Amino acid sequence: MALDPVPLADSKVTGGFWKPRQDTTRDVSIPATYAQLAGTGRIDAFKLAWRPGRPGVPQPHVFWDSDVAKWVETAAYSLVTKPDPALASQLDALVDSIVAAQQPDGYLNTHFTAVEPHMRFKNLRDWHEIYCFGHLAEAAVAHFQATGKRHFLDTMTRYADLLDKSFGPASEGKIPGYPGHPEAELALVKMYKATGEKIYLALAKFFVDERGQAPFYYETEAQQRGEPPRPPEPLDRVFARREYHQAHAPIVDTEEIVGHAVRAQYLYAGAADVAREANDAELLAALRKIWDNATLKKMYITGGMGARPDGEAFGRDYELPNETAYAETCAAIALCFWAHRMLNIEADARYADVMERALYNGVISGVSLSGDKFFYVNPLAANLHGKRTLERTTWFGCSCCPNNLTRIELSLGQYVYSTCEAAVYVHLFVEGEAKAKIGERSIMIRQKTVYPWEGKVVITLGMERETEFAVKVRMPGWCKSVAIGVNGTEMDAANVPLEKGYMVLSGAWNDGDVIELLFDMPVERVHAHPKVEADSCRVTLQRGPVVYCLEGVDNGPGLDGIVLPQKAKLLPAFEPGLLGGVVTLAGEALRQDSTGWEGALYATHGTRQQRVSVKAVPYFAWGNRTPREEMLVWIRETQ
Amino acid sequence: MALDPVPLADSKVTGGFWKPRQDTTRDVSIPATYAQLAGTGRIDAFKLAWRPGRPGVPQPHVFWDSDVAKWVETAAYSLVTKPDPALASQLDALVDSIVAAQQPDGYLNTHFTAVEPHMRFKNLRDWHEIYCFGHLAEAAVAHFQATGKRHFLDTMTRYADLLDKSFGPASEGKIPGYPGHPEAELALVKMYKATGEKIYLALAKFFVDERGQAPFYYETEAQQRGEPPRPPEPLDRVFARREYHQAHAPIVDTEEIVGHAVRAQYLYAGAADVAREANDAELLAALRKIWDNATLKKMYITGGMGARPDGEAFGRDYELPNETAYAETCAAIALCFWAHRMLNIEADARYADVMERALYNGVISGVSLSGDKFFYVNPLAANLHGKRTLERTTWFGCSCCPNNLTRIELSLGQYVYSTCEAAVYVHLFVEGEAKAKIGERSIMIRQKTVYPWEGKVVITLGMERETEFAVKVRMPGWCKSVAIGVNGTEMDAANVPLEKGYMVLSGAWNDGDVIELLFDMPVERVHAHPKVEADSCRVTLQRGPVVYCLEGVDNGPGLDGIVLPQKAKLLPAFEPGLLGGVVTLAGEALRQDSTGWEGALYATHGTRQQRVSVKAVPYFAWGNRTPREEMLVWIRETQ
Repeated sequence: MALDPVPLADSKVTGGFWKPRQDTTRDVSIPATYAQLAGTGRIDAFKLAWRPGRPGVPQPHVFWDSDVAKWVETAAYSLVTKPDPALASQLDALVDSIVAAQQPDGYLNTHFTAVEPHMRFKNLRDWHEIYCFGHLAEAAVAHFQATGKRHFLDTMTRYADLLDKSFGPASEGKIPGYPGHPEAELALVKMYKATGEKIYLALAKFFVDERGQAPFYYETEAQQRGEPPRPPEPLDRVFARREYHQAHAPIVDTEEIVGHAVRAQYLYAGAADVAREANDAELLAALRKIWDNATLKKMYITGGMGARPDGEAFGRDYELPNETAYAETCAAIALCFWAHRMLNIEADARYADVMERALYNGVISGVSLSGDKFFYVNPLAANLHGKRTLERTTWFGCSCCPNNLTRIELSLGQYVYSTCEAAVYVHLFVEGEAKAKIGERSIMIRQKTVYPWEGKVVITLGMERETEFAVKVRMPGWCKSVAIGVNGTEMDAANVPLEKGYMVLSGAWNDGDVIELLFDMPVERVHAHPKVEADSCRVTLQRGPVVYCLEGVDNGPGLDGIVLPQKAKLLPAFEPGLLGGVVTLAGEALRQDSTGWEGALYATHGTRQQRVSVKAVPYFAWGNRTPREEMLVWIRETQ
Repeated sequence: MALDPVPLADSKVTGGFWKPRQDTTRDVSIPATYAQLAGTGRIDAFKLAWRPGRPGVPQPHVFWDSDVAKWVETAAYSLVTKPDPALASQLDALVDSIVAAQQPDGYLNTHFTAVEPHMRFKNLRDWHEIYCFGHLAEAAVAHFQATGKRHFLDTMTRYADLLDKSFGPASEGKIPGYPGHPEAELALVKMYKATGEKIYLALAKFFVDERGQAPFYYETEAQQRGEPPRPPEPLDRVFARREYHQAHAPIVDTEEIVGHAVRAQYLYAGAADVAREANDAELLAALRKIWDNATLKKMYITGGMGARPDGEAFGRDYELPNETAYAETCAAIALCFWAHRMLNIEADARYADVMERALYNGVISGVSLSGDKFFYVNPLAANLHGKRTLERTTWFGCSCCPNNLTRIELSLGQYVYSTCEAAVYVHLFVEGEAKAKIGERSIMIRQKTVYPWEGKVVITLGMERETEFAVKVRMPGWCKSVAIGVNGTEMDAANVPLEKGYMVLSGAWNDGDVIELLFDMPVERVHAHPKVEADSCRVTLQRGPVVYCLEGVDNGPGLDGIVLPQKAKLLPAFEPGLLGGVVTLAGEALRQDSTGWEGALYATHGTRQQRVSVKAVPYFAWGNRTPREEMLVWIRETQ
């Protein structure tokens, strides 16, 4: 039985770890990213004023609309949980300008209206035309839900109707193509759910089902553009490879996740929506296999996805290099989208474990604590060997990540709870309050916690009268022991039923009932599967869901010379003044030095080691103190 | 005081390790590579018969002439040490056809005569026009020295004269360019030494000195071809980067070896020749620095050079990944060329150590034991993770390596000894006999040894009458202890003077005097400098100069799961029936297995280990038994 997420409007973050982050997102990131959108010409692009050679009007890029759309979506999410008249009017003005850019036939895209109108729907493979539709559609749904105003959603339904007329089976005289960069699939399902219009679900299903079928549409399309037949596949033409776009095989025949990491996961998130709404068991079975491959063989411990810069792509199984990892911020976010959908279909905590892993590590590493600087890539070691130097920056030429971060941070509430008949699921431990439906009744559920810094979570239930239901609380995958109290009485955890990773607390609940959880949260030494060559003889530190790293500013340069003995004790301590308040881990380790290696590259004499103190900080907070800081997640280990 | 190598004509290999290899090279590799040259059209290219659209005549590629030239050079070396009338007449016919392709003005190049005559000397950067000259010139010198016939050498002097007229300072109205792929520099010095004609040395010196000077010639040249100015340097345009061709700075201002590994080392070998012949101390000082950087920070333990496939190039300091290593066969050979020149300038055994390391490992790994299959790249781990599967093959589109291997194998004799006034230097331990000049007198020096399988070397001196001179025997860098006997009497090794790594045995020698050396040759566990990330927590095995590896055929699949405890004993044994007769190393190790890792990518439970037997074989002999064999040089190590 599938779960229904408690929507954002009913689930507010009120304190703890996430509230200050959301405040920063509202106060800093939203204005900072708007300024970048405006400064680069993305906002004015909807005036469609670009002409060849016209001064002062930058040429809209094929993906610009999506950047603006994600800002709109973020602003809408912000307004849902915190009214802000100034933001609301800024949003209204922007939405009006987007709506005004719609063409008489419903089409809406700045690049392909102002710059290359003759290329409309001519290159689905390489350009981001339908991807931009998807983001605008998501924005329109969010805007409608936040403001109750329909005009943007109506605009997008007209555009979606045009897509429906244009794309579909060749037998119906339509273009049998599908978006090069998936995104429209999940957006069309959102539109279907917002409007009840089944043709949007059908179009999403067509895009999902048609993908990877022979004859291969992108090659047909390239021929129609007059391009030479596709040559053999050298590495430098990665963008032309079928696998890059997951267009090499139908999803139902896919078992391994390959190609561009964001494209793949947006696709599978959309496919999960389609599988759920269309009751497609075969598609769902394929998604389970792909999920297992992705998370058991190709996921960084941070939830980072995509090992290879080349093609921003997944590597082979267990290919997880650290310093050269790509792990695009958007790919970790996409993993959350996909995980959230699988979680609500399957009601299995392992999806929530992955979502939590990504959220506390590889997602929020993408933004500075100040809220105005971003990482595009999130490797697990940085600036060690001068291979690639790295610091967060205010914007990117291809700037998908910043407003993907803001939208997930400000919509976090919707990931916390789900309901299913007479049960409420607690997926994440986030201080806040939510309203959930148990049958016809509404109950309130409040969490008080400083998780992930401590393992204590206090859940208070609110209701008008006694109600029979189950509270299903996720037992985190990282946790080996939990103490549970109900209204002050400790329960025997062994007697609490565990259902797909959820502790089932059933009963007749009353207003003010309190569930206390104390998750045992020691410092854990984590190893990688022995086939992960990059992590061999290495260990990383994790406490709760938070993965740690060493930084040069705490430990001096040459982090890869630090060796952690297996028995080294590491003690956690909350440091309120550090990095916005984090738990650090401190202990003693050994440090290799190069003494004795002068004049030698290979030798039989071994390497000297000295005792040193080490201090680890949460991975997500790295690179916030000094520029181009050295950083290392996987530390050498010795017996 | 610089040394003079004992030339090939005076230094024969007669037995031991190298004789069977040379026999295979003569009997198999020479005919096999000729058949490839003929079959691909490279031999007939000298008929200059190619015309657009003419059937049956393949278009000569810009580097084809060099492949043929290296075969000629190899055949000449073979004839020097072993007469063979059939080979001699095959060689004569080929040389005649090359000579016949010379143009009236002295020019000689199949591609730029038959295919693109209008592009002569127009793109030094990307094409291999002057590189082909260099190989033809080396071939002509070798052919002259082997046969005494002058016509090929005369042909090449006419071409060299044309180059001299064409290239030089702009102030003299000449083209101020230099070869994109160095090779002509060292070849011109060979021509200078063979003919006594100083203009060839001067032209070599011009090429060496002009390289990397501003304005940058390759950019001027590209402008003259009408190409747009050079864009910023994205990775995918590596071939257009100044560093790729070592054209970013003058050699005298260079401290780090960068760019294409073969180009760099051919250049520095030629520059060493120029520095020696022109007494250029500043140039020599720069070469010492570059050498140190190359061999102390960028050399694989096999003598493999060039970490990166991209641009076939050196990486940064200590960037020495194993499975993705490029380590082109030609680059290890180029290292020998360069080392040999530095050795004879500096009389320092550390150059011979590197030369020996390359010869016994990364050079001869390039050819199968059967003599007819070749590696282009020589990584230090293979087929482990499916990143790149690898086996030797009969030929390559760009087939520089096969005939580079044959020419170094059949000219090995010239690397063994040098003389310097009243001293003979023994650089390598190779069974054979040589004639060396001590002042006006000739002495004979014979070695009897099965080195590198045993550390015993017996040197017998021959002369007409008692002669006072020093025998300077290299103490190998890998060796920690040696026993020395002279005419049956053991000497106290501590009392033998050591001069830049050479044991100096001086005295009045008589015919039949015998020097016996017993180099202690235990199995050594070798580590890499702690900054080499790829080898961290790993060990490799070496015995004498031979580096070992594990192969799947001996140890089962999943070699990277083998962990060698620091105290594991490894015993050497000569196995006459294995891989042509090699010493293998056998012992006990641990093997990680993935049991317990089902369904997990990261976990706190560690990895199980089982006791297993392991067997290591010489690296150079890997991949000779089963196709696409797994191989691993750097083995995980534990305490």
